[in-house]
Amino acid sequence: MVFPFEILKFRQVDGIGGLVVAIAQDVENGEVLMAAYTNAEGIKKSLETGKVHYYSTSRKKLWLKGETSGHFQKIKEVSVDCDGDAVLFKVEQTGGACHEGYRTCFFRKLAGNKLEIVGKKAKGK
Amino acid sequence: MVFPFEILKFRQVDGIGGLVVAIAQDVENGEVLMAAYTNAEGIKKSLETGKVHYYSTSRKKLWLKGETSGHFQKIKEVSVDCDGDAVLFKVEQTGGACHEGYRTCFFRKLAGNKLEIVGKKAKGK
Repeated sequence: MVFPFEILKFRQVDGIGGLVVAIAQDVENGEVLMAAYTNAEGIKKSLETGKVHYYSTSRKKLWLKGETSGHFQKIKEVSVDCDGDAVLFKVEQTGGACHEGYRTCFFRKLAGNKLEIVGKKAKGK
Repeated sequence: MVFPFEILKFRQVDGIGGLVVAIAQDVENGEVLMAAYTNAEGIKKSLETGKVHYYSTSRKKLWLKGETSGHFQKIKEVSVDCDGDAVLFKVEQTGGACHEGYRTCFFRKLAGNKLEIVGKKAKGK
């Protein structure tokens, strides 16, 4: 797959240019797993390998989700939003998306005036 | 609801500080409707009114989604991701989330080397 990069509107985040929001959604149950950033190279590598690559603004480098944890995100579908600054990956998630062991990074829900942990720990890999 | 703002990690996007990614997801079918940004004031107003408020980086102002279109996003659930730079709103969407008339802003799917329109036009208000 070749991506039509001309439709993207890249943004500068914390001083780092060329980024778009990248959202991973569980293709099976629709759960939003993760929101981060990626860039043109990350999208290219994601499509080439079939696995989501993000750009880390803290480490200032591209990374393959799962490269250390084994928790890869296998891409099943790619969508782009109307203003071209966000890309949605529908994925098959191996293990948990969250480095804290949860299935989704959005494991905390607002309840009253505090956050309550409602996410489930990922099973297996 | 009072939001524990101390857990958020605000970012600077295109030179504008104090922002986090804000994702709206259809509470009924799990569809990701929209991804944009908001800030502390936007979150506060969203919780006070029960309707999602975003921050527009182009217009450099807070806006109530639906203020001109009538296509409000009624908040049913709020989650925060592990690193605190993204907020997920599960919403009841009136009409379409997209200003182009589609139910979701992610109405274009990658097919081969181009984007194909797969989104449905929103019905009624």
